[in-house]
This record gives sequence, structure tokens and C-alpha cells, in this order.
Amino acid sequence: MVEKIRAVYERYGFEPVETPAFEYTDALGKFLPDQDRPNEGVFSFQDDDEQWISLRYDLTAPLARYVAERYGTENLVLPYRSYRHGWVFRNEKPGPGRFRQFMQFDADTVGTAVSGPSAAAADAEMCMMAAETLEALGIAKGSYVVKLNSRKVLDGVLETIGLGGDENSARRLTVLRAVDKADKFEWSEVEKLLGPGRKDESGDFTKGAGLDTDQIEAIRQALRFNIEFEQMPDGAWREHIDGQLPKKYLGMEGEGLMRVGLSELGEIIKIVRAAGYDNDQIRVDSSVVRGLEYYTGAVYEVELLLETKDEKGRLVRFGSVGGGGRYDGLVSRFRGELVPATGFSIGVSRLQAALSMLGKLNQQPEVGPVVVTIFDKERTADYQKMVTRLRKAGIRAELYLGNPKNMGNQLKYADRRNAPCVIIQGSDELNDPEGPQVIVKDLWVGSTVTDVEETRDRYLQTQRLIQKRVPVLQLVDAVEETLGWHGIGPRGPGPA
Amino acid sequence: MVEKIRAVYERYGFEPVETPAFEYTDALGKFLPDQDRPNEGVFSFQDDDEQWISLRYDLTAPLARYVAERYGTENLVLPYRSYRHGWVFRNEKPGPGRFRQFMQFDADTVGTAVSGPSAAAADAEMCMMAAETLEALGIAKGSYVVKLNSRKVLDGVLETIGLGGDENSARRLTVLRAVDKADKFEWSEVEKLLGPGRKDESGDFTKGAGLDTDQIEAIRQALRFNIEFEQMPDGAWREHIDGQLPKKYLGMEGEGLMRVGLSELGEIIKIVRAAGYDNDQIRVDSSVVRGLEYYTGAVYEVELLLETKDEKGRLVRFGSVGGGGRYDGLVSRFRGELVPATGFSIGVSRLQAALSMLGKLNQQPEVGPVVVTIFDKERTADYQKMVTRLRKAGIRAELYLGNPKNMGNQLKYADRRNAPCVIIQGSDELNDPEGPQVIVKDLWVGSTVTDVEETRDRYLQTQRLIQKRVPVLQLVDAVEETLGWHGIGPRGPGPA
Repeated sequence: MVEKIRAVYERYGFEPVETPAFEYTDALGKFLPDQDRPNEGVFSFQDDDEQWISLRYDLTAPLARYVAERYGTENLVLPYRSYRHGWVFRNEKPGPGRFRQFMQFDADTVGTAVSGPSAAAADAEMCMMAAETLEALGIAKGSYVVKLNSRKVLDGVLETIGLGGDENSARRLTVLRAVDKADKFEWSEVEKLLGPGRKDESGDFTKGAGLDTDQIEAIRQALRFNIEFEQMPDGAWREHIDGQLPKKYLGMEGEGLMRVGLSELGEIIKIVRAAGYDNDQIRVDSSVVRGLEYYTGAVYEVELLLETKDEKGRLVRFGSVGGGGRYDGLVSRFRGELVPATGFSIGVSRLQAALSMLGKLNQQPEVGPVVVTIFDKERTADYQKMVTRLRKAGIRAELYLGNPKNMGNQLKYADRRNAPCVIIQGSDELNDPEGPQVIVKDLWVGSTVTDVEETRDRYLQTQRLIQKRVPVLQLVDAVEETLGWHGIGPRGPGPA
Repeated sequence: MVEKIRAVYERYGFEPVETPAFEYTDALGKFLPDQDRPNEGVFSFQDDDEQWISLRYDLTAPLARYVAERYGTENLVLPYRSYRHGWVFRNEKPGPGRFRQFMQFDADTVGTAVSGPSAAAADAEMCMMAAETLEALGIAKGSYVVKLNSRKVLDGVLETIGLGGDENSARRLTVLRAVDKADKFEWSEVEKLLGPGRKDESGDFTKGAGLDTDQIEAIRQALRFNIEFEQMPDGAWREHIDGQLPKKYLGMEGEGLMRVGLSELGEIIKIVRAAGYDNDQIRVDSSVVRGLEYYTGAVYEVELLLETKDEKGRLVRFGSVGGGGRYDGLVSRFRGELVPATGFSIGVSRLQAALSMLGKLNQQPEVGPVVVTIFDKERTADYQKMVTRLRKAGIRAELYLGNPKNMGNQLKYADRRNAPCVIIQGSDELNDPEGPQVIVKDLWVGSTVTDVEETRDRYLQTQRLIQKRVPVLQLVDAVEETLGWHGIGPRGPGPA
């Protein structure tokens, strides 16, 4: 799976780069999503010099530190497209679908143009790459969607309702986290978080953003905008927006920012449509906000539309398997200047679980090694020699290393390993008057040959293959013949 | 590099398995090598339920926990050969060649026969796999050696000098750690650690094992045994031991254990020699002890014999790049029964540094993507469309995403990315009377064609390739021609 994702990213011109699992806590910053007390979600400790270090909780914050260190030097060619995958760590109570350690696969482009078509092209590329990755993994068009929005739309609306400015940044974050829960909670619960606050089932109270009814309504509308872009016969693009802010907020400061967001979305859509991606693959959805504070423009979310049933027959919707956005401020935390960047992250563990439930992962048992059995343990060195000959010929092979006194156990082991054949040399074979022989016993032929009686020739050929007795010098050839019969090469399925 | 190691291990019949980066601190145990205060070398913290968890400091202890959980169930086929690579973490002061996070690549066989030829075959296999791995990485025979010893030899000697029994286990560990330092310290310093103790340059005092002169001499001799095994004309094996314990210890309890160790070494050597590995590749070296407490039998160490000079002209010896041994007790910590196991670990980060200094790592710059430049930023969507066409044809390609106003910068970027060619479409090309054209400009031809003037045909062909102007519909074909000319396929070097 990781290899398939990597192949797409490489084709898109991205370069692999890895960052360490640790960062100094200061450098990592406090950008954990869905976390009301961000520090608590991170594994942190003091090193010998009493400096605080933390395990990375995502792959974006460490990349920002990495890029900031190299920015403007010969070691970083800008714009810088890179990708990486690795474990990230969250100090949370583990639960279903919630792990302390999980794998992400990220791609980021840093140092693009600040605005205009080239900036839009960088965001568009992320959306297209996300779509193509899912298709490469076997999720057909129509079974997934990349939803696109701009944080500027919501930020603009927040400004119109009086939540602009630095002095309101904490309240804006509360709003952000509340609306990010709209896909998990009923809207009435989200409203409590936007208003006075919410008490959960366990009785814990979460303080709300303290908005009034009109303000909450404005936010509700902003999340329901139906935004589409259509190309006119003359080639120009026109936007359609279905939905409206409450009248009292029209014309207020902030509407400008909202319009900038909409126009940037238009630029992105223009590029992805020209490249041939349609509404089923990538579309604007104003309900997407992403809970992370650091996004500054486009945000995107990759959603699986497939449903399946779990082992208890319950309907399972997979939902989001990845997402990202533009984070122009994250690198500049370390530097004076603005460093435009955009990226997205695939939740590999989550996607893997989904693909496996959908049967899209290759569940076939691997081709096991050829197993050389031990008939006489005093002759172990001779048997090992056979293994070595097979391995030198590139054939996956091994010696039985358990207690060899029972041949039945050895054959059972080979069978459980899915070995295509076993090698046996007893005293009869060793002392054959024509010189030492070995038996190559096929373990697969019974299960793969269904047409045994189809033709006499084939029948005889099969019988000959089930158990061959050949001079020990012809061991490698005989095994290669058996592997070839099953259509497997020395190292696995595929032409011999 | 990891892929090459993996290919060898797969051929040997090993299966990939990964374990988490964390373990409960209790489950991990305190088996850190070279660490006088083991707890201090581990990153540990309490989770939300106040349970102590630690980051893994090696890959062996977590495997032991993993196996113990599955031992005797249908989920584990025994003997179980497995491999894994991943980051491990040590809470130490970082320094040259000493990292807090480094990568190991481990292979282990669990549940082999308890003793006899099959147990020896499992150890022999590890040594041969180590040798073959180094050769697969380009380290020729003679430039490395796998050194083999048995912990039973030293344990036997310790018993003869009165350090047997549970009551002496702490002292034995002190001895072990002292002699493991013999390759870093002068012997006179090791003697201090075996005797009354040692004060280092900073004045820190390390308590010694408190042995007397005769005891220390016995240990010194045990580390200098010259042990060889020779096959006689009749096929039998004979051992040669050069070196002797001090007379007063001969015949003492413990000599039997020492003899068992020697005889097991003989079994292993017999198997590796029969398989064709000679003294240059794998040999017994009684100075190898390995500092880890948990080894119970064979121990092995992989050493690079190559020397090189660092950037300051100083001689650098690489020394050990991996090692391992038999740890029959590690899994049984979790279970009542004995679970024989043997394994070894390659220090990937260390080996990588060595290979890179030796020039054995592929240092060639990667083939960069085809870069589509932006002549008119209002036409970004059109350029993106070209990129998408190239990508759909499997060609690594990207749009220039920086500020497009300067074409020179775009070409410089493409050059630094090692792009084989760039695509340009200005207004002349767009408005060509014969329909829209593109320019495919080759960036490599100047540096790769050395025989430009060799033949007139070749000269003309080269000229034509440096800059081609083709209809936009033929873009993919034209790029494929350029890549083919340079002998690179769509995704990198190799046949087109």
C-alpha cells in the first residue's frame, strides 16, 4: 500500500525526506487537532540536559522545522515538493480506531508563489494527487470524493459577526473546533459548543464560544453554502453560490475576505477541471473546515463514500481518510518572512483498515519458502547445503529448524508456511545405487489442479509432479520446474 | 539499502513483522547494553492511567513480548523466522556516531530445537545471512568478517573461578560489561573494571567486579582462546584450541559448561563450512562476548575490516556494524517454559554511514521530473493540463509552482531538480498558424553527449533533440523520445 502511494507521489515530482520522531517541544508547537488541552495529547519528557522533547504528533510540524532550518540555503530547492511516511504518536486513551501510534503519509509543497494561479496550482495538485492515490489503491471514481473549501470563507464570516482581530483568536479556535465536530455530533450539540457550552454524557462541561443566536445562524449558513463553478461557452468561469448570510451581517467588514476565499476556490477548481478531474472526484464543500488552527487558505478532506458491514452486521461508513490544507504561517513561526506551504496527509492505518474491510488489500497468503526437511539430524549440515544451493539460485528456501524427529510435523509446518514444495532425503534416497537422490514433494498440486482428469497427458504430468525423485545434483532444476508449474518465479508469484 | 537487506531475508524464508514503538516498561525489561544504570537509557513516561510505558531501545525485547503473547496459538507457526526494521530510541547524550534515535534491522528465529544440530543450524543460518547481507550490500568477501563465540565458554570459565550461581549474577554482569569494553579500552583499564574499579578522565568512579589477579588472568585467557575446527580426511571434525586456563582452575566445576560451549561452536562451524562459507567469512573469535545480559549461547558480531580516511585525513576503522546471539531465556520471562531463540541486528544507521564513506551507496542524483514552465500565469490551467497528460502516461512531471515571472529562474529550478527536459509554451507557440505548439528543451544533452562531432548524423540528431518544437498533441511522444534518448524509462533510469 505504501509502495503504491509512493509511486504516485514520485510521479508527481515529490522527493522523499524523513524527519526524526522527536523534536524539541518548543519547535513542535501546540497544533494538535481535536484537543482542548493540546499539551496533554503529546508524549513529552525531559532529556539529560533537562530540555523538553516531544514525540511528533503529526508529520507537518516537524517538516516546518526542517524546512525553516534550510530555507534560503543551497540545500533546499524551492518550491520544495516532498513526501514522507512514518509513525506519529498521541498521548490519548486508546479505543476503537483510536491509537497511540499510527502511520501517516504526507506530501507538502513549500515555497510556492504567495498568491495567484501558481498558489492555486499547488493546492489543486494536492487535491488531484489525493484523488489519484485513492484510485491507485483500487477505490474507484465515485467511491471517494476530495472535498475542498477555503478557511478564508469561514474566517471572513467570523469577521462579519465581530470575531475578527487578534483579541478574538481564542474564541475563533473554539468555534473552529466546534464546527469541526459537525460530522460527529448533531447540529444542536454543535450549537451548544458555539453558544454557552456543552455537558457530555459523563457530565464533563466544555466551555462554549459564547455566541448569540444570529452569530450561530451566520456560521450555520457559511457551512451550508452550495458553491459551484461553471465554465461558460466563451471559456470564462462563473461561480454559483446557493446560500446567504443573515441580512444584518451583509456588507460588514469580513465579507471581502470571504470573497477572496471564494475566488481562490474558483482558481483551484478551474485548474482541476482543465486537468480532467470532475465533480465526482474533487468538489467544493463548505462544511469542510479541518480542526487545525494553522490552516490559512484552502483546506481539503478525502472521504470514502463506501459503506460496508462489520462482523456484527452493523453498517460502517469510513468517512475521512485524509486531509490537509494551506499553512502559510507554520514555517514563518521560525523566520520573519512568510513561507507559503500546502500539504496533505493520508491516515495510512485508517485507510488500511478500510481497504482491508473492503477486500481491496491483497489477502492471499504469501508464497512460502521451499522447506528442506531433516530425516537424519546427524546429517543437518548436508541438508543445510541443499538450502544454500537453492538460495544461491535465488529461490526462497529454508531448513526445518524445529525438533526433526517427526516427519509429519515437518510436513505440517511446511503446509502452514504455504511452502510450494518440500525436499526429503532419507537413507533410501541417499544410498541409491545410481547415486544420492532427493524427493521434491509438491504441496500445492492437489489444491491448484482442478482438471486432473481432463486429459490423460495432463493427469500423468500431474502425477509425476506431485512427487519427483531426482539426483541430488539436479535439485535446483527440479525445484525450479515445480515453481514454474505453479506459475511462480523464484521469489514469488509471477513468471518463473 | 533496506530493500537489499529485505531481499536477502525474504530469500532465507523470513517473514516481515512489526511491533509498536512503545511497550509497557515492565514488559520491555532492563536489558540495555553498555548501560550501568539501565533505566536511565530508556525514554519512559506515564500514560493517562499512570502506567509506565517506554520507547523501545532495541527490536529484540519487543519481539520477545510479541512472541510470548502468541506462543502456542494458531497465530504463530513454529519455528518462527521473522524480520523487522525500525527506529529504536536511547535516552543518552547524543555525540559523534551516537544518536538518540537510530535504525536497526533485525532477524530472529524463535522456537527452534532446544539443542543439537537443529539448534546449531539456526545459529549458523544467522551467521550466513549476516555474511550474505554484507555481500549483497557490496562489501566483498575479505572486507568483513562474522565473528562467532559462545557465551557458555565465558560462563564456564566464570564458574571455574567461583562466579557461578544466582548469588553472583550481578558480579557476572559487571564482568561481562567490563570485557565487552576490551575493544575500546586498553586491557589495563579493563583489568581495573574487573578488579577494584576504575576512575575515568572526568573523575567518575565505576565500581569493579572485585576479582583477584588469578581470576582476572583466567578471564584474559578465555578471551584469547584460539579455536579452530578442521575437517579430517575421513569427514570427521577435530577442534584445535590454542590457549589454556591457569592451572589452579583446571578440572573445577564449570569446565564442563565451557566444553559444551566449544562443542556447540563446532556444530555451527561444521554447518557453515558445509554450506561453503569459509574462514574469511565466518570464524570463531573468543574475544566476542556482547554486553547484553540475556544471551545464553552463541553470540556473533559482524565487523567491517575496511578502513577509510575521514574528511580530515584521519584513519577511520568501522568495526562492528551488527551482532546478536542466542537468547533462550528472553521469551520465557513471560512464560513458564523455555523458548529457544536466536537473532541478530544490523545497525542500519551505522552501516549506512560506513557504506556512504566507502562510496558503496548510490550517490548519483536522482532523475528529476519533467518540468512544465509557466510563460503566462493566466494560462496556469493549460500548463497543468500538460503536466497531467505526462503523468497519466506514467512520466514523472510537475508544474513550476514558484513565482513564474522570470523564465530564467524556472530553468534554473529545473536544472537543480535534475530535470531531463522542460516544456515551454509562449505566445508564439500557442498562436502558431499550424496550431498550438510546445517546445521540449533537453537539459541533459549537453552533459551526456560527448561524441557530438563524431558523425554528422549523430550531430544533427543531437541538435534536433536539444530543442524540439512539436504540436501540443504530440507532447507525450516528444518527451518519451527525449527520455528514451537518455536511456531512462518514464519513472527513472532503465529501459524506456
